[in-house]
Amino acid sequence: MGDVAQRLAEIVGANQVLTGEDIPDHYASDEALVGEVHRPAYVAKPATTAEVAQLLGAATEHGVPVTARGSGSGLSAAARPRPDGLLISFERMNAILEIDTVNHVAVVQPGVTLSELDEKTAEAGLGYTVYPGEMSASVGGNVGTNAGGMRAVKYGVTRHNVLGLEAVLPTGEIIRTGGKPVKTSTGYDLTQLIIGSEGTLALATEITVKLHPRLRHGATVLAPFTDLDTVVRAVPTILAAGLEPHILEYIDALTMAAITYTTGLSLGVPDEVREASQAYLVVAMENRDPDRLEGDVASLGELLGELGASDVYVLDGGSARKLIEAREKAFWTAKAAGADEVIDVVVPRSAMPEFLARSRELAAKTESGVAGCGHAGDGNVHLGVFQKDPVKRASLLHDIFAVGMELGGAISGEHGIGRAKKEHFLQLEDPAKIELMSRIKHAFDPAGILNPGVLFD
Amino acid sequence: MGDVAQRLAEIVGANQVLTGEDIPDHYASDEALVGEVHRPAYVAKPATTAEVAQLLGAATEHGVPVTARGSGSGLSAAARPRPDGLLISFERMNAILEIDTVNHVAVVQPGVTLSELDEKTAEAGLGYTVYPGEMSASVGGNVGTNAGGMRAVKYGVTRHNVLGLEAVLPTGEIIRTGGKPVKTSTGYDLTQLIIGSEGTLALATEITVKLHPRLRHGATVLAPFTDLDTVVRAVPTILAAGLEPHILEYIDALTMAAITYTTGLSLGVPDEVREASQAYLVVAMENRDPDRLEGDVASLGELLGELGASDVYVLDGGSARKLIEAREKAFWTAKAAGADEVIDVVVPRSAMPEFLARSRELAAKTESGVAGCGHAGDGNVHLGVFQKDPVKRASLLHDIFAVGMELGGAISGEHGIGRAKKEHFLQLEDPAKIELMSRIKHAFDPAGILNPGVLFD
Repeated sequence: MGDVAQRLAEIVGANQVLTGEDIPDHYASDEALVGEVHRPAYVAKPATTAEVAQLLGAATEHGVPVTARGSGSGLSAAARPRPDGLLISFERMNAILEIDTVNHVAVVQPGVTLSELDEKTAEAGLGYTVYPGEMSASVGGNVGTNAGGMRAVKYGVTRHNVLGLEAVLPTGEIIRTGGKPVKTSTGYDLTQLIIGSEGTLALATEITVKLHPRLRHGATVLAPFTDLDTVVRAVPTILAAGLEPHILEYIDALTMAAITYTTGLSLGVPDEVREASQAYLVVAMENRDPDRLEGDVASLGELLGELGASDVYVLDGGSARKLIEAREKAFWTAKAAGADEVIDVVVPRSAMPEFLARSRELAAKTESGVAGCGHAGDGNVHLGVFQKDPVKRASLLHDIFAVGMELGGAISGEHGIGRAKKEHFLQLEDPAKIELMSRIKHAFDPAGILNPGVLFD
Repeated sequence: MGDVAQRLAEIVGANQVLTGEDIPDHYASDEALVGEVHRPAYVAKPATTAEVAQLLGAATEHGVPVTARGSGSGLSAAARPRPDGLLISFERMNAILEIDTVNHVAVVQPGVTLSELDEKTAEAGLGYTVYPGEMSASVGGNVGTNAGGMRAVKYGVTRHNVLGLEAVLPTGEIIRTGGKPVKTSTGYDLTQLIIGSEGTLALATEITVKLHPRLRHGATVLAPFTDLDTVVRAVPTILAAGLEPHILEYIDALTMAAITYTTGLSLGVPDEVREASQAYLVVAMENRDPDRLEGDVASLGELLGELGASDVYVLDGGSARKLIEAREKAFWTAKAAGADEVIDVVVPRSAMPEFLARSRELAAKTESGVAGCGHAGDGNVHLGVFQKDPVKRASLLHDIFAVGMELGGAISGEHGIGRAKKEHFLQLEDPAKIELMSRIKHAFDPAGILNPGVLFD
């Protein structure tokens, strides 16, 4: 055991440190489809904030780069360690510290999974409303990447649902930012700065999140359309009607075929309608009052008809749940179908038709394929990209990202930049902003030990 | 005309620069009740982003400190210039550039007032939902201080309603952060970092804000209570019921007397109820559907009875509007009543009873007075503090702020720190956080020209 491993063992205990061949494969990777995978030099599993602080102190002392890991379900390679690095796995810091039913907040450690938090909050009639589609994801990982998901159209993304953090700075100090109040105006918002920083600024060791009352009555509506443009053009009108859907997704025909086939799901759409459909809209609503919900479903059905839906199906509970689950697994379906990359450009929702049209044109020109689905209410388009040649693919991605930015959007709505999209980010983003971000990085992490190679070179 | 004034005149035109005795008094001040007031050395009124960038370039070159000013309605002295400084007034950058009815956003210049934006968005059936109580406030000023107000309980504060910025860095670069999409995950969130930074990091020159559909039907309910604790204890239950009030305020008896007397408002509360009341709850709800609203008002009335209200009054439109306006003017009423300071500590809403009790104890011990009202749904307590002796007052404020922080809250929920509360902020806040914030400040503003003396010494 080397000097560094020895020091790590002193901090967390020898049985909580792994090195060399003892490190299981899964610590080397996350779910990004691209990029190199390296086993780290060390894995340490702290149990307390104080141990995290000491680990960062030791890493600084020995010049060892540090990557944080939650559940490893990220899609941007931000949780992939360096071969010479220390991977801090938060798997043991997985306690739900408090469900506060008066202030409607929960306080959790970063290793808590969304599914654990969901179960525990349900007991109190409350819920944490960020559902990025992978319930094994950790809250800490969600903070790192500013995770989103289907319910963001009503409840916002991680950024809008985290009120406070305890975090360890790379300099070893432990700070507390924000807290249970829903607002403060006392200096710079460090909570918001750390959220989405992909493990490059500080490591969150305790997270205070907003909870919402669970609404007991829900309905899911499926509407096929004969073309994709009509679907995405319908979205602003649905939102303007004030029906407040918590899910508003589009799914293109190819993706719908794949996810229903994979999951053996039958939605009751007659063959002739299905064959003529190029895309689908899935709209879910919820209410504390069943009569109000019924009224809203009727209004929505009428509206969808006016907006050009070929038909409107109100799905029963079982089918609805299965469709939402199948949609959540769209990433796995795309992966199984051989997608070479999955991207999540976000644009103003009015720009979705143009973005999709131009992406398809760019794909056709390079003999590539794009297909997908997305959070239509947010303008967040998830595309599977099919192009085996890495050079052609990089060029296609560059062009698609550039179109998204030109339309007033960004490279990623919720997956993050990580290592996977860094090259494009650094090429396409304003150099003045990259410069400013790297100065902010330096303000937090003068020694540069936190996740080097993520976001910046 | 000195060198500096000459240079400023070259940038914005000679008739847009003021110096010396030509500077009207109002440029020296904002609405903070405390602190020194100095006329600045220069006032410049840019018309474009490029001019703002050149002004910052000139200020850097000549080492002149720069303070930005919107409408001057701030309460923390963050818009008060230094005597040797340049005040950049955004009064000419007051265009509403776009009301985007498809994406539900507006793009405005910083000098646009809330009342102008309200009028313009109303024409489109939309609204900007931040109402800090002073409609002459500018959107740019609201960004600086992260302004809140009564509707935050439903819609959040400025931070939750600004999607993107164009901003000039003190180094003269112009950057664009965020944009029309409701979410991005592409590097550090510079939008959120600039919001609430009180003019110390960058100057916003264009602001993209979220709009919401205007709900046509509204109702306001007034409930007197025989004691203040019962009022604040009722708040979590009202929020948990899912009625989604957009206003949820408490007003103590003294403040209610003052604001109704000042505005000549009669609320129809019988004398015997009024005399027995120590505090009031004001709850406003809105709905697109009048029947649903009526149902919600009935549920709320029932709930308030169960929670200990002495009675429940549904106010007619005219009285409701006047009461909300009177509440919005509570600051002016406190000022007219001789309050020596007005503070806005925020605590978890469950901690309001303890915070109020301990604040009253601290006031009694120092022969001071505290009275007020507040955003009960947010735990944001607005207290007028009556104590003429500045030394005693500083000590009382220190103790009240410390109680707020001990209860998991912060010195300010929405007014900001500015110069007015800096001393307490620097004394009470974790030195590691102050240190980190000042490194972030340096990352933006290496020459230290933006609002020196605000937040930091």
